[in-house]
Amino acid sequence: MIRPSEDNQYYELHSPTAMPKASGFLWNENMMIHMNCRGYAVSQFMQPEPSKYSHAPNLEAKTFMQPEQPYYAHHPGRFVYIKDEESGGLFSAPYEPVRVLPERYTFFAGKHDIKWLVQHDGIAVEMKLGLSKNDPFELWTVKVANQGRAKRKISVYPYYTVGYMSWMNQSGQYHEELQSIVCSSITPYQKYKEYDKIKHLNDKTFLLADKAPTAWEVNQEVFEGEGGIGNPSALEGDTLSGSDARYEMPVCVMQYKLELEPGDETELRFIFGAARTEEDIAAIRRKYFQPGTGGSDGFAEAEAEYAAYVREGEGCLEIDTPDKALDNFANHWLPRQMYYHGRTNRLTTDPQTRNYLQDNMGMSYMAPELAREAFLTALSQQNASGAMPDGIILHKDAELKYINQVPHTDHCVWLPVCLVTYLDETDDYSLLEEKVAFADSPELATVSRHIDLAMEWLLKTRDERGLNYIEQGDWCDPMNMVGYKGKGVSGWLTMASGYAFRVWGDICQNCGRMEEAALYRQRAEETNEIVNRYLWDGNWYARGITDDNVPFGISSDKEGKVFINPQGWSLMCGAADEQKKAKLMQAVTEHLESPYGVEKLGPPYTAMREDVGRVTQKHPGTAENGAVYNHAAAFYIYALYLADEKDHAFDLLRRMIPGPDQEDLERRGQLPVFIPNYYRGAYRQIPRTAGRSSHLFNTGTVPWVYRILVDGLFGLKGERNGLRVAPRLPSDWSGVSVKRSFRGAELNVSIKRYKGIAAQEVYVDGELAEDGLLAHLETGKHYEVLVKIPG
Amino acid sequence: MIRPSEDNQYYELHSPTAMPKASGFLWNENMMIHMNCRGYAVSQFMQPEPSKYSHAPNLEAKTFMQPEQPYYAHHPGRFVYIKDEESGGLFSAPYEPVRVLPERYTFFAGKHDIKWLVQHDGIAVEMKLGLSKNDPFELWTVKVANQGRAKRKISVYPYYTVGYMSWMNQSGQYHEELQSIVCSSITPYQKYKEYDKIKHLNDKTFLLADKAPTAWEVNQEVFEGEGGIGNPSALEGDTLSGSDARYEMPVCVMQYKLELEPGDETELRFIFGAARTEEDIAAIRRKYFQPGTGGSDGFAEAEAEYAAYVREGEGCLEIDTPDKALDNFANHWLPRQMYYHGRTNRLTTDPQTRNYLQDNMGMSYMAPELAREAFLTALSQQNASGAMPDGIILHKDAELKYINQVPHTDHCVWLPVCLVTYLDETDDYSLLEEKVAFADSPELATVSRHIDLAMEWLLKTRDERGLNYIEQGDWCDPMNMVGYKGKGVSGWLTMASGYAFRVWGDICQNCGRMEEAALYRQRAEETNEIVNRYLWDGNWYARGITDDNVPFGISSDKEGKVFINPQGWSLMCGAADEQKKAKLMQAVTEHLESPYGVEKLGPPYTAMREDVGRVTQKHPGTAENGAVYNHAAAFYIYALYLADEKDHAFDLLRRMIPGPDQEDLERRGQLPVFIPNYYRGAYRQIPRTAGRSSHLFNTGTVPWVYRILVDGLFGLKGERNGLRVAPRLPSDWSGVSVKRSFRGAELNVSIKRYKGIAAQEVYVDGELAEDGLLAHLETGKHYEVLVKIPG
Repeated sequence: MIRPSEDNQYYELHSPTAMPKASGFLWNENMMIHMNCRGYAVSQFMQPEPSKYSHAPNLEAKTFMQPEQPYYAHHPGRFVYIKDEESGGLFSAPYEPVRVLPERYTFFAGKHDIKWLVQHDGIAVEMKLGLSKNDPFELWTVKVANQGRAKRKISVYPYYTVGYMSWMNQSGQYHEELQSIVCSSITPYQKYKEYDKIKHLNDKTFLLADKAPTAWEVNQEVFEGEGGIGNPSALEGDTLSGSDARYEMPVCVMQYKLELEPGDETELRFIFGAARTEEDIAAIRRKYFQPGTGGSDGFAEAEAEYAAYVREGEGCLEIDTPDKALDNFANHWLPRQMYYHGRTNRLTTDPQTRNYLQDNMGMSYMAPELAREAFLTALSQQNASGAMPDGIILHKDAELKYINQVPHTDHCVWLPVCLVTYLDETDDYSLLEEKVAFADSPELATVSRHIDLAMEWLLKTRDERGLNYIEQGDWCDPMNMVGYKGKGVSGWLTMASGYAFRVWGDICQNCGRMEEAALYRQRAEETNEIVNRYLWDGNWYARGITDDNVPFGISSDKEGKVFINPQGWSLMCGAADEQKKAKLMQAVTEHLESPYGVEKLGPPYTAMREDVGRVTQKHPGTAENGAVYNHAAAFYIYALYLADEKDHAFDLLRRMIPGPDQEDLERRGQLPVFIPNYYRGAYRQIPRTAGRSSHLFNTGTVPWVYRILVDGLFGLKGERNGLRVAPRLPSDWSGVSVKRSFRGAELNVSIKRYKGIAAQEVYVDGELAEDGLLAHLETGKHYEVLVKIPG
Repeated sequence: MIRPSEDNQYYELHSPTAMPKASGFLWNENMMIHMNCRGYAVSQFMQPEPSKYSHAPNLEAKTFMQPEQPYYAHHPGRFVYIKDEESGGLFSAPYEPVRVLPERYTFFAGKHDIKWLVQHDGIAVEMKLGLSKNDPFELWTVKVANQGRAKRKISVYPYYTVGYMSWMNQSGQYHEELQSIVCSSITPYQKYKEYDKIKHLNDKTFLLADKAPTAWEVNQEVFEGEGGIGNPSALEGDTLSGSDARYEMPVCVMQYKLELEPGDETELRFIFGAARTEEDIAAIRRKYFQPGTGGSDGFAEAEAEYAAYVREGEGCLEIDTPDKALDNFANHWLPRQMYYHGRTNRLTTDPQTRNYLQDNMGMSYMAPELAREAFLTALSQQNASGAMPDGIILHKDAELKYINQVPHTDHCVWLPVCLVTYLDETDDYSLLEEKVAFADSPELATVSRHIDLAMEWLLKTRDERGLNYIEQGDWCDPMNMVGYKGKGVSGWLTMASGYAFRVWGDICQNCGRMEEAALYRQRAEETNEIVNRYLWDGNWYARGITDDNVPFGISSDKEGKVFINPQGWSLMCGAADEQKKAKLMQAVTEHLESPYGVEKLGPPYTAMREDVGRVTQKHPGTAENGAVYNHAAAFYIYALYLADEKDHAFDLLRRMIPGPDQEDLERRGQLPVFIPNYYRGAYRQIPRTAGRSSHLFNTGTVPWVYRILVDGLFGLKGERNGLRVAPRLPSDWSGVSVKRSFRGAELNVSIKRYKGIAAQEVYVDGELAEDGLLAHLETGKHYEVLVKIPG
């Protein structure tokens, strides 16, 4: 069974086999760990590029985080073997690698820690993983208790994977004076100039113990012997052999021999992670394990500091609705996931520009000062031509990597689209007057001017019809061969430009730039006409037109007939009239909606289409090719709210957030502690795998889901003069309560259905608010808001 | 026990646990497979760069072949599970992954196939792996026999690892009409220009069965279930489930239900490997499994053709000495390994120039026409300045990779050093008159002129003292920071240049270029003076002098005191007089000799020395840092033969070739079917691991060991006028017989000790040959040669 804990701090899972890939994740300012319910782990830290201290058993490719990846016996993990010294009985917590099904098992995926409680054969094992706020290592607490009635002699063996560190140099040994296993390696390099970088890397992996172990094993081969990782030969003996590793695969295993009277409990604590030198490890030991005043020590203090850090990631909404799973997700996990994005920039030094802007759109709700800074950083990397780069460089040594080396044409769109949330939330229009230089020119220009240039760039990079060039790709579907010859155009991007012009026109109006306001609104109108002239296919909008003038994403296509993006954005930019809206919604329902959400395109491509390109080579139902790509789905839902399609919008929103239905959760295979970047799609073609969750929690979906809640579902959106109330509850909700923080004011909003009223009525502290606008709200004050809606 | 088979076609190993990393290898024109005795495999094929069809369970880094790599439960492998349908008993052949120790086990590492014979629980399993001459796939024969007295019902499940093919697209399913499991994937790419390359790749992995299976499993997760790879859950059922893989990790498992009467045997055959399309697989099926005339089919014909291909790799020596292990190695495995190098160029499209030249030096003994062509290819890539490139491009799409992007200064040296063997062996001095262009100039120049330019380049790239610049490295120890500022020099390279001048002077003399002969010999003399003036350290020669004028490889160094290369090459170039020779030999014995051969340097570096660089970051005792680096050791042995140190040379040679001592073999951990690139060194510092074999069979060692046998030990070296006989047998050998093929003549040479003679006497067909020179040998003729040596 999967359920939230009573304090909503955890999600609980009660079987290690029901959802073998279920996981939780923790992050801090310098690392991330994705912890699987069975004990496997994916962890990375920044120096400045993502690095590992716990490796696979072979040479791993260095690449971006994978959405779905297999686990296998030697996948990096954190385990505790428990051996009964008298009977020889062996099991491991949490479950891997011995795979003895414990009598009781609970996995707690938490916000600031991750825990297991495993009870087997009269022994209870509690494992807890925490982090500090900044350090690239894990804080582990292992408690072992005798729950039986007889004295027990057991050995407890914490196991931490080190893996294949380096082909150049790797070794490991126990250091008595550090009470640590220290594994050393050297990052391989070929060119002498690289040495200057690699010499500063944290190339050591260490396991530091609070209590001195009875014995240890550092050599993976010696540890496993012929028994293998599931039944290691080294555990057959009385004590581990104290091996070392010399250009052999290291492992960190310690042994604690315990004699436990009935009811006795022993607590062991460990720090596992990366360091540069033995001196650093000695300093860590002093900092974390030296008792402070009052009995607490650095370890406990770090845990408390980290919990406080995670708590900082609070949203501006606290909701109480008939849907408790939604409440839990929106109040706890969604802001947490959004905060993760904003704080870590997805653990990359060169986030894609569109991701960086959207992640910081999310930060507008929780840490607007960071969002402000990020917008300025992004604009400082704009070219004087108005073009935005493909990625934002966040570290002096960073460079554009992977997909950021492929030119995309949509980055400018996201400037007004994301900025408007910051302005709505803060009313900080002074940002528009800040002066920033360009990447290729020291000339200072206001933020307004920067965005004017971005809009002009979007107007310039159009063909003779007025459709925007796609070059080697735009957002969310890397269709790299539609327009690489310089002629192909993107339907979606043309709509998105139109939407950006409209939003920017509104912003200009708000700050008194009336001429620009009129100009951009006119451009938006013109764009809508162009969209309707060239892209309407009869029942929905086409995705684009190739270099060879072939429209695609249209009814005569066999695969990739309908794409979600042009449909949602045609609603947002206003191109679709009522008739078109009805038709395209019908098409989306027919071709793209699934029990797990709205698919990105359908039917998915099963073979290469050379004039479309890369997306058609993605596996059907995954990533961009026919998956429920939540980021794209979120825009459609947002658009439906704008179009006042309350019930349909809520229905689709609800499919995106897993739970509370247990069967649905098990099918997805992920606890509802984050929204993944996609669920497997191709529901009509490959039903067996449809709905399965990607395990990637990096996704631009989250700020948009938050914006859907604020602007759409609860309708508590900021604007220049205050907070505009316009909730769009699903018809079957009689009412909700929402706490909304807004520009320093706290609002307790009660939304209730009333029979006999024709239109919504909004009361603030008992007084009617005209047009639902809450003006003159004051920082530090509390307001009681009653919203009567017809029903 | 490890022993050669009676026909010398195999090496046998009788336990899967005694030497768990023991292996054999097969290659053909397009692929290589390194097969571990327990069933694990490393395989690669060329298209044109090395590619895999059997992958690890995670994203693997693409890199050069690793000398030592860990095996783990999910390492790619080829296994057969055998289940008793009545008792449920399960074991696997050869040993992994179930790890039931069989009652009888033999691993046969062969020349043109690799076999296992595993007997357990009344069932005998024979597994045989063969290759075809050209195709990138494996030919497997699995025979299963009932050795008991009762009828047996069993299921046989061949298992072939497919692994994590691609994050972009991977799937697998059984194709009835192809009788194959076909797993598809798409090689990931980011930039549209890469698509044009990846679209032609053999991205499918297939398992094609001769007989239709009862059932199959294609989904790794479904196959393993909670039982894991050691006890797969899918084997608990009656028949496999017929699963497929959809963006899930594929595997190729088939099930054959057999009912075997006592004495019955069933033969199953499979083809496993890479293909581009289903049509290709259908064609493979027709070609290999369609019976031909006479009962044989393509499968059997391919095996025969491959065996013939491997037999082509014959050396020019067949020896019969008191040392049977040496005989076996020199007659069978050494030429095979040499042939592998020459045919495959180590499965790279850009072999390092020095490797390419030395590998083709080896081919001079077995396929001189290929060696000739290779020398011309290499010279066509020389610059008009005389400089040789760091790698030789062998395919139009190839580029210089890895270490070939780092400028090294020794490549010119190898031209005369390797060419002389070709000339000695063939007397084809016409090669020197061939005209070849340059990489950067269409101007044609003779081979002689090319090599003159190479020698002049070596003379130009010296400092004011006459010592050769090392830049970012020279041969065999990537000391990338000695001279990157442009000042540091290499002691070894200066000696090697001197040796090259001498050899080239001799060649010039032989073809009548007397002026050049005198010139280069004079340069050689001058170089020797320079070497002695700047590099003699009192008891041995220094390795070099850094950018900051710090000599290293000297007695005052704490680590890296003595390097083997300058000692051996000082003997070869003639710099060391008798007194120096005695001293340096003493130093080598004291600091570098170990039971497993001569170490590369000593004591190995344990920490970075920033003025020396990369070598000091290699793990002590591995690769270049203090290992018994056989390639370097071979030169020392060659030099000792030139210096007439017969017994010492033979002793060191013998340590390089594993066996026959069983304890020694087990320590090394490798069957004597190849010489590895290194044995672990640091014998004085890390005795636990010293002697352990690298598993990399790519090494320039082999042609030099062959040259040691020809020029040194047996002294049957060619020269302009014939074959010069000058054997240097160890003192405790009373005599040997050698068959020597030479320029088309066949010589039966008997070398015997005679008491009472003062000097060697050589008789050809009973007639005394003056000075031991066998002149006027005729192609196609046989000669009986008696060599009497004093003793």
